[in-house]
Amino acid sequence: MKLSIRPDNLVVDIEKGGSLLEGVRSAGINLASSCGGKGTCGKCKVELVTGNLETKASMKKLGANEVLSCQSFFTDGDVTINIPNDGRRLSGHKVLINEISLPNPFGLEPLFRRVVLRLPEPSLDNNIDDLSRLLVELKREIGIEDIYFSLEMMQKLPRVLREGNWTVTVGLALLSCTEGGCGINGCRTEIIELEPGEVQGAYYGLAVDIGTTTVKVNLVDLTTGETVASGGEYNLQQRYGDDVINRIVYSTDEKDGLNRLQQAALTSINNLVQKMLSEQKIKEEHIYTCVVAGNTTMVHLFLGIPANNIRLEPYIPAASLPYPVKSRYLGLAMNPNGFIYTLPAVGSYVGGDITSGVLATRLSSKERISLLIDIGTNGEMVLGNSDWQISCACSAGPCFEGGGIKYGMRAMDGAIDKVDIGPDYEITVNTINDKKPQGICGSGLIDIMSTFLKEEIIGRTGKFDKNIKNTRLRLGEEGWEFVLVWGKDTEHGNDIVILETDIDNVIRAKGAIFGAIRVLMKNVGMTFDNVSEILIAGGFGNSLNIKDAITIGMLPDVPLEKYRYVGNTSLKGAQMSLTSVRAFEEVKEMSKGMTYLDLSIGNDFMEEFVSALFLPHTDFTLFKSVAVN
Amino acid sequence: MKLSIRPDNLVVDIEKGGSLLEGVRSAGINLASSCGGKGTCGKCKVELVTGNLETKASMKKLGANEVLSCQSFFTDGDVTINIPNDGRRLSGHKVLINEISLPNPFGLEPLFRRVVLRLPEPSLDNNIDDLSRLLVELKREIGIEDIYFSLEMMQKLPRVLREGNWTVTVGLALLSCTEGGCGINGCRTEIIELEPGEVQGAYYGLAVDIGTTTVKVNLVDLTTGETVASGGEYNLQQRYGDDVINRIVYSTDEKDGLNRLQQAALTSINNLVQKMLSEQKIKEEHIYTCVVAGNTTMVHLFLGIPANNIRLEPYIPAASLPYPVKSRYLGLAMNPNGFIYTLPAVGSYVGGDITSGVLATRLSSKERISLLIDIGTNGEMVLGNSDWQISCACSAGPCFEGGGIKYGMRAMDGAIDKVDIGPDYEITVNTINDKKPQGICGSGLIDIMSTFLKEEIIGRTGKFDKNIKNTRLRLGEEGWEFVLVWGKDTEHGNDIVILETDIDNVIRAKGAIFGAIRVLMKNVGMTFDNVSEILIAGGFGNSLNIKDAITIGMLPDVPLEKYRYVGNTSLKGAQMSLTSVRAFEEVKEMSKGMTYLDLSIGNDFMEEFVSALFLPHTDFTLFKSVAVN
Repeated sequence: MKLSIRPDNLVVDIEKGGSLLEGVRSAGINLASSCGGKGTCGKCKVELVTGNLETKASMKKLGANEVLSCQSFFTDGDVTINIPNDGRRLSGHKVLINEISLPNPFGLEPLFRRVVLRLPEPSLDNNIDDLSRLLVELKREIGIEDIYFSLEMMQKLPRVLREGNWTVTVGLALLSCTEGGCGINGCRTEIIELEPGEVQGAYYGLAVDIGTTTVKVNLVDLTTGETVASGGEYNLQQRYGDDVINRIVYSTDEKDGLNRLQQAALTSINNLVQKMLSEQKIKEEHIYTCVVAGNTTMVHLFLGIPANNIRLEPYIPAASLPYPVKSRYLGLAMNPNGFIYTLPAVGSYVGGDITSGVLATRLSSKERISLLIDIGTNGEMVLGNSDWQISCACSAGPCFEGGGIKYGMRAMDGAIDKVDIGPDYEITVNTINDKKPQGICGSGLIDIMSTFLKEEIIGRTGKFDKNIKNTRLRLGEEGWEFVLVWGKDTEHGNDIVILETDIDNVIRAKGAIFGAIRVLMKNVGMTFDNVSEILIAGGFGNSLNIKDAITIGMLPDVPLEKYRYVGNTSLKGAQMSLTSVRAFEEVKEMSKGMTYLDLSIGNDFMEEFVSALFLPHTDFTLFKSVAVN
Repeated sequence: MKLSIRPDNLVVDIEKGGSLLEGVRSAGINLASSCGGKGTCGKCKVELVTGNLETKASMKKLGANEVLSCQSFFTDGDVTINIPNDGRRLSGHKVLINEISLPNPFGLEPLFRRVVLRLPEPSLDNNIDDLSRLLVELKREIGIEDIYFSLEMMQKLPRVLREGNWTVTVGLALLSCTEGGCGINGCRTEIIELEPGEVQGAYYGLAVDIGTTTVKVNLVDLTTGETVASGGEYNLQQRYGDDVINRIVYSTDEKDGLNRLQQAALTSINNLVQKMLSEQKIKEEHIYTCVVAGNTTMVHLFLGIPANNIRLEPYIPAASLPYPVKSRYLGLAMNPNGFIYTLPAVGSYVGGDITSGVLATRLSSKERISLLIDIGTNGEMVLGNSDWQISCACSAGPCFEGGGIKYGMRAMDGAIDKVDIGPDYEITVNTINDKKPQGICGSGLIDIMSTFLKEEIIGRTGKFDKNIKNTRLRLGEEGWEFVLVWGKDTEHGNDIVILETDIDNVIRAKGAIFGAIRVLMKNVGMTFDNVSEILIAGGFGNSLNIKDAITIGMLPDVPLEKYRYVGNTSLKGAQMSLTSVRAFEEVKEMSKGMTYLDLSIGNDFMEEFVSALFLPHTDFTLFKSVAVN
C-alpha cells in the first residue's frame, strides 16, 4: 500500500492501521501538531484526494475533503493526499542569530584542555609506575591533584607514554564539584584523552541552546575561544507537541515517548554539528566537550530524565543541576569520552536558559538593578543585581508563536509583522521577505494591537468599535473579525482576518507578562524607577517593537533608552561556561542563591494579571507615556 | 573431524590446522603448560593412539607415541589420544585455606553501604528538585558532601522517590580519593543504587586474592562483616604459562593474549562466585563491591592493562594503584554498577598481595620490628614497623611448586611431603592424603634436603656423598640421582628419584630467599636479633617445616617461637579493606611510604646470593643452631 503526497509527489509505503500523521512524517514532512497527536489542535489537517481512511470523530470543524492526519488511519488500498502550505513547518523561517555583542570578562579557561607533559624517563633508580609518573608531573605542572582515570585510559597509558618517548599530550575534562565555590585546582578532573608526543592543532567544544522551538549550536575553538561555526534548526521534538507541557504529556503517556523526545533533541543537535564539521573539515572526535542551556523540561528530555513531575503540582524537577554526563551515554556527535554539562535551573519553569542569560548579561555582577525578560511560549524574567536575584515564569501561551490565533504563524516568509492604516481603514501590510501574506506573526500581532488601539478600531477592553462602518469589520462564523488582507492578495486566497478572540488571547498573554513583572517588583518593594535597564532576550525580542509593546501594556512604560536587546543569551551563557570554568562556577553559585517565585502560590499574580487585562492597563498611572482616550 | 580423548571418552570437533592443545582445552581438560605453548616445558605431552598429527620439531625427549600438544596440529581425519594422569592439573589438589586468626582492629565501615533516607515531601513551599532534596538529606544524615550520580541513577530518581513515598534506600559506593589521608566524609561517593522504600536484608562484597597459581574468594556480608562463603580454585591463566613472566610474554606476544589472560582470571573468580551464590541462594546483583589483592602482574592482567613493561628493564608497572573500576567494564559476577578496587603495589615485584599482607598482619602499626615473608614462585618480603617498611622480591623459581624438579609436583594427592631415613638408607615417605607416591612437593623437597644433610647423604654444596654404597644412589641419564621410592610402590611405576641438579635448584631458590632477607637487613643496618617476629605467609608457608627450612639455610636461624604462620594474608587484607574504608586508606597510605628495594640494582644481592649457595651458608655464624660437620 502506498501513500502519495501532493504537491511534493512523494510516495511512501504504508501499512493497514498506521496513522496518516506517521505516514506523512515517514516521508520526511514535518506536519504541525501542537497537541501532540490528540486531535485537538487541528493543525495537522490535510486534504484527502483519493483513497479511504478510517477517521476518528473530531471536535475540529473540517472542510469537505479535510481530515486530521493524527486521527486518520489507513484501511485498504492506496491513498493520495494534498498538504496545504500552511500546514508545514520549517519552510523559510529564519532562525534569528545573535545580534547584540555582550562583553565576556572571563579569560580562556575551558572545561576541556590539552596539556603536553614531558615526563622524566624511568630508570632503575626512578622506577615509579607510569600512572604515578604522569600524576606527579600533572600536579607539578598545573597543580591539579584530584584526577580520575578511566579503565580505558589506564589500559592505553603504557603504550602512549613509550610511543611518545615520554612526551604525552593529555586531554583534561574539568568536572568541577557540584558544591561549587571551590578553587579551580581543587576541582575534580578526568583524563579523557592520551596521545603520544606533542599533539598540535585545535580542539573544539559545543555551546548549545535547546529551545522548545529551535536548537542553536556554536562550534567553538577551545584554543582561542573563537566561534568557528554557528547553526540553528527547529527542535525536531516539535512533532510531539508545541510547548513543554504537551511534550511532557507525550513523554509520559506515549510508549517510548521519553526516548523519542530525547532522540529528537539529539538528532536536532547532531544534524547541526555534523553539517558544521563537514563544512569546517573537523573530526567529530576533536569535539571534547559540550555545554547545554535549555529550560528545565528541555534539559530533562535531552538527558532522558523523566520530566512528568515538572507538570504536576507541586512542580518538582528531577534535577536542577544534573551531573556532567559522558557523551557516549547520549550519543552526541562528539568524542565519546567527552563530558556534556548542562546549566543549572532555578525551578521547574526558570531553567538553565535563564541562568545562562543572567550569566551572559552579567546581571548578577552589576551594582545597578536590571530586569531580564525572555519572551517565548513562556515568559521568564529575572530581577536583581550583584546582591540578589529573583525570578519567575508565566505562561504567555502560544500566541506569539502563532498558536491560538486564527491566522497566527511563526515569523516565516509571508508573515505580517507590521500594518499601516490609511484613510477609510485602508490597510497596508508588511510581510517577512515581502512574500504574499499568509498570516500574522507575534511581532505583527503586537503592532496590529497597538495600531488598532491608536486608531480606535479597538477600545481598552480589546473589543472592536462596532460603530465602524466598513466591510473590513464583520461578523464571521467565529464572531467579530477585522479583515487585514483580502483573499485576492493572500497566498492561500482566503481573507486574513484578526478575530476579537485573537485579540483577547494577545491581551491575556501580555497581561500575564506584565502581571509577572509587577509581582516581581512588588516582592522586592520596588518601582520601575529603581530599574536601570530592561534586557529583552530571546528570538522574539529581536523583532519586537518596544514602543508597541509598551502601548499595549506588555512591557513597562520606562524611557526607551533603558531597553536593550541582548539576543540569545541562553547560547551566549552556554558558550561563556564552555570557555571558562570560572563562568560555569559562577552560574552554578548564582543559581543556588537565586529566588524562584512560583506565581501559582497566593493571589498576587492573579490580581496583577486581571488588572493587566486592559489596554494598556487598569492603572493609567503605570503607562503615562501612552495616550489613552 | 573429531578428537577423542582417553581415558575420559570425551569427543570434540576439531578443524584442520588447529593445535592439539586447544583441542584438549576445548574439551574442558586443563593440560599443564608452564611455557605457555612454546614447546619448551614438555608438560603438555600426551600419547597419540590413532590418527595423524603434524608435529613441529621439539627439543624435548618424547616417548614412542608421545607428542607435545602445543606443537601438534590436526591434519586430516579423526584423532584419538590418551592423557596420562600426571599431565593434568587440578585433580585432588587441596587449595589451602586460611588457618591463622589475625585480629581485625577496624570497625565495620565497608566500601559499599546502604542508607535509608526519609525525605520531606515536596510542596509548593518546599519545591527544590529531587536530586537536591536527596543530597541535602544525605549531607544532613551522614555528612557526605561530594556525591556523584550517574545518568542512570538520575533517570531513575523521580520514580523511585515517589514509589517509596519519599523513603528511599540509597546504595553508596565509597570512592576514596587517590591522594589518601583525607577524612572519610571528604571522600568521593557514588550512588550506585536507588530503591523505593526501606530495603531490608543483607548485601555483600567479595574479597579476592588472585594468585599466580590459585584464586581465592571470600563472600562477605557487608552488614555484619562476616564471611558467608569461601572458595579456592586454580587460576585458569595457568594454561598460558606457569609464572608471571611466561604470562606477560603470552599477553604480549600472542594475538589477543592480554584479553585471554584477563578473561581467564575473570572466569576463575566468576566460577567460584557463582558456585557460592547458588549455594547460598544469594543474587548476583546483591554483591555491590569487590576488593582484589594480587601481585602487580596479576592485577594488570585482571584489569586488562598491558603488563609487558613489568618484565623489561627498568621494570615499570603501568599502575601501582589503579583507580576503582565499575564492574560492568570487567564483567565480574556482581552488580554491574558496583566498583572493583585493587590493593596498591609498591613495585613491579612487590604487589597488592604483599601490601595486603602488611595490612592484615598489622606490621606497619606495631612498634616492634617484624619480617613478613611470602614464599611462592617469587619470594616477597617486607621488613619494618610503624615507622618504616622496606620490601623486596626475589625469584625463587618454580621448584617449590614442582617446576624444574624431575619429580616435582604441587601439594596434591600422592605428593611426598616428608621422608624418614632408616638404617641402610631405607626410606619411608609420607604422602598427601596417603595416596601412592607420584612426586615431591615443595615442603617435601625442603624436608628431603634437611634430612639428607643431617644424614650426610649430601654435603654442604649439595652434592651426594659418592662414597655411599647403596643401590639408591646411582648415576642415571641425567646425572647422579637418589631413589626415594621404587617403581613398584609408585602410582606411575617409575622410580621416584631426586637428582643432584634438583638439589642444586632448591639451593638456588633458598639462596635467593635468604640472600634477599640479608640484603633487607643490611639496608637498615640490623641483625636478626632486632627482629621480633617472622611472619610466614602464603599457601606454601602452611606446610613448611620451619626447622627444616632453617637447617638448609632458607630462613634465618632465630628461635622458633619468633616464627608465625599467618596464612593467606593477601586475602585477609583484601577482606579488611572491603569491610573498612579506614583499612583501605591505611594500606594506600602505607604503600606510598614503603621503600621498594630492587635487588637487580648493585651487587649486594648477588654477593649475598652466592654466599647462600651452601647448606646452610658460607657463614656458619649465621646458623649456630644448625649442627654442621
